[in-house]
Amino acid sequence: MQTYISPWPLSVPQPDFPRSICILGATGSIGTSALKVIRKHPDLFTVTALAGGANAKRLAQLCVTFRPPHVGVLNEQVRQDFISYLPCGYTPEIHVGPEGYATLAALNSVDLVLSSIVGAAGFIPTLAAAQAGKMIGLANKESLVLGGHVIRKECHASGATIFPVDSEHNALFQGLVGHQSSQDENTDLKRLILTASGGPFRGRNKNFLQTVTRDQALAHPNWDMGAKISIDSATLMNKGLEVIEACHLYGVPVEKIDVVVHAQSIIHSLVEYMDGSQLAHLGNPDMQIPIAHCLCFPRRVEVDVPQLNLAQVGTLTFEDPDEEAFPCLRLAREAFAAGQSHPIVLNAVNEVAVAAFLNEKIHFLDIPQMIEQALTSHQAVKVDTPSAILELDRITREEAESSL
Amino acid sequence: MQTYISPWPLSVPQPDFPRSICILGATGSIGTSALKVIRKHPDLFTVTALAGGANAKRLAQLCVTFRPPHVGVLNEQVRQDFISYLPCGYTPEIHVGPEGYATLAALNSVDLVLSSIVGAAGFIPTLAAAQAGKMIGLANKESLVLGGHVIRKECHASGATIFPVDSEHNALFQGLVGHQSSQDENTDLKRLILTASGGPFRGRNKNFLQTVTRDQALAHPNWDMGAKISIDSATLMNKGLEVIEACHLYGVPVEKIDVVVHAQSIIHSLVEYMDGSQLAHLGNPDMQIPIAHCLCFPRRVEVDVPQLNLAQVGTLTFEDPDEEAFPCLRLAREAFAAGQSHPIVLNAVNEVAVAAFLNEKIHFLDIPQMIEQALTSHQAVKVDTPSAILELDRITREEAESSL
Repeated sequence: MQTYISPWPLSVPQPDFPRSICILGATGSIGTSALKVIRKHPDLFTVTALAGGANAKRLAQLCVTFRPPHVGVLNEQVRQDFISYLPCGYTPEIHVGPEGYATLAALNSVDLVLSSIVGAAGFIPTLAAAQAGKMIGLANKESLVLGGHVIRKECHASGATIFPVDSEHNALFQGLVGHQSSQDENTDLKRLILTASGGPFRGRNKNFLQTVTRDQALAHPNWDMGAKISIDSATLMNKGLEVIEACHLYGVPVEKIDVVVHAQSIIHSLVEYMDGSQLAHLGNPDMQIPIAHCLCFPRRVEVDVPQLNLAQVGTLTFEDPDEEAFPCLRLAREAFAAGQSHPIVLNAVNEVAVAAFLNEKIHFLDIPQMIEQALTSHQAVKVDTPSAILELDRITREEAESSL
Repeated sequence: MQTYISPWPLSVPQPDFPRSICILGATGSIGTSALKVIRKHPDLFTVTALAGGANAKRLAQLCVTFRPPHVGVLNEQVRQDFISYLPCGYTPEIHVGPEGYATLAALNSVDLVLSSIVGAAGFIPTLAAAQAGKMIGLANKESLVLGGHVIRKECHASGATIFPVDSEHNALFQGLVGHQSSQDENTDLKRLILTASGGPFRGRNKNFLQTVTRDQALAHPNWDMGAKISIDSATLMNKGLEVIEACHLYGVPVEKIDVVVHAQSIIHSLVEYMDGSQLAHLGNPDMQIPIAHCLCFPRRVEVDVPQLNLAQVGTLTFEDPDEEAFPCLRLAREAFAAGQSHPIVLNAVNEVAVAAFLNEKIHFLDIPQMIEQALTSHQAVKVDTPSAILELDRITREEAESSL
């Protein structure tokens, strides 16, 4: 049984307010929602660092508004573009590339790092935040999929605390807080039940999936998300990655994690205890809710999300996932069970395949097929250092790309 | 704003195991479920006292099985019957009548009192347990409806802790534990949302209700309960009493308590926080779940209830209550808002009216009408002592009975 990396014991005092925040992935969907929460509660937060990707203009707009003294950009080109958008008299310290992001995550002046860079690129900055003992609002599930075992070790050593931002893991967190009778054992826990919207293709069979387009796959019914995660949601790989993430976060074996399809995305996940109690988190599907929970824990603050009215919603439905039409969920479980290196392969091939599908180079059903082939041929290797993890990630991507 | 009488702060250590248990109402539905839990976990509990009502034979059967050294019976006649059923060599100390129940609740050797006597008769024994500083598993909602203000004062003075057994209040408790940022303020809390099955007459209008029979009203769709509470469930008075109970338990004003009709009784209630999070407790409708939670808190134990499988349940529905056809919910809110003596009148008239309906002396719709008339003519009086409460209860019953 693995141990927790999530915030037990909760008796550890969390930094008081105002909290100094670093947002990695500030221009993305999670970053934008986080900045809405921060703007609504300016007394609770200091924005110390904002890091973006390739969109220099958007990042500059945010920086002009929030005036962080530190900024992170993707590369030298973006740095120059970014500077060109800055007004007179505002000269933040600019940090470039993956090392730059890691520097921001470890800044002495930062209390809480919101790690919301998309994909495997989020691993090293998250690791840096863990090593520096920060509170981490973790929206980058790939960090744990790739190196949950390494990050956990660093959290234990430094006292870093992970608050899960993903609506599902945040729901589990809220169902677990205050309900564990012991810090070291989770014998009271029976199952974690992740809910899945089922994505845009819920109820469709393989024949239909054969021909779906990029735009069909991007049209998520409930959540407004980035392109990568929208495709992962359509293949159910998103849920597969979440199963792995939940294993790492809550120290439970993969057999104890179930998935139920819940099309309305109102119940965000459930914790089942051995007495038959299931504790669920419900809310309108808006990421401001879990983000605010992570930024302010253990306090709660108001957010600009309409109040959930169950009588207006009327009906909530549940069904078992169709693992025949959507094999990614099974692939993720198998990868986690197979060893520490298999999830790295799973994730790398998935990222390459999703990018290829978004570029209309491969079909929708090629995504799970590429992953299954790679997992089948992969021989487990030891990956207990960040460099070993990144090396396996790099090689796997190259191989996957060359196979396109 | 009222303060909590529920178990905050939870840092107060609870008695360890095995816990010495006193069950008041052992022969009823709650008592029977509690004894199932206790029988499954004999290492965790000592049954120190069992008290029943008029059913001497059933009580004797239970006592022969569990061999409590103390027993409570309704009156002298029941005592004699009870003794006649006992086998040689088992001679428990027998306590008679309301004073006997109160003595059991305050026994030095008792850690936890399960207060599950039906109706206003549960008030004095619950008060005795509160005065004696016990853990109290409270299934008798009338205790709080009649004298929540008095019981709270005693809990504060003695260190007694109330664990709510009612599935709805237990659900709220589970959604509140660990989520209050402050012990003295509940500023994070937005609403408590009680779910209601709607009873056997959900969706029916007043015309239909005019003619319903005793047997129709007793046929609750989800829960297997006693006769009194089944009728209360059919009139929605049960939910009205629960609104009042929740106000007392969680120190929230009545305006912060909403009711949503949820026919499947799978979600047992929800706590809404100011960030838009709603925490819900789900489970198959079996009272062993909340009872086990109260008997073992903060531990959890296995109970013999089938695992809830949401995919099998398939659909959960929600609608607003029909307060036109079922006025008892409104009457309860109005009574709580009107002052401390109005809920006593509400409850007393309701008990008389329900008994009259069960004896086929009045029609179903006469129940709310009798209550509304009594509330309208009642002048608020001071009821800050147990004797004042009981006196008002007695007078109101006499008046209600003479009006039949």
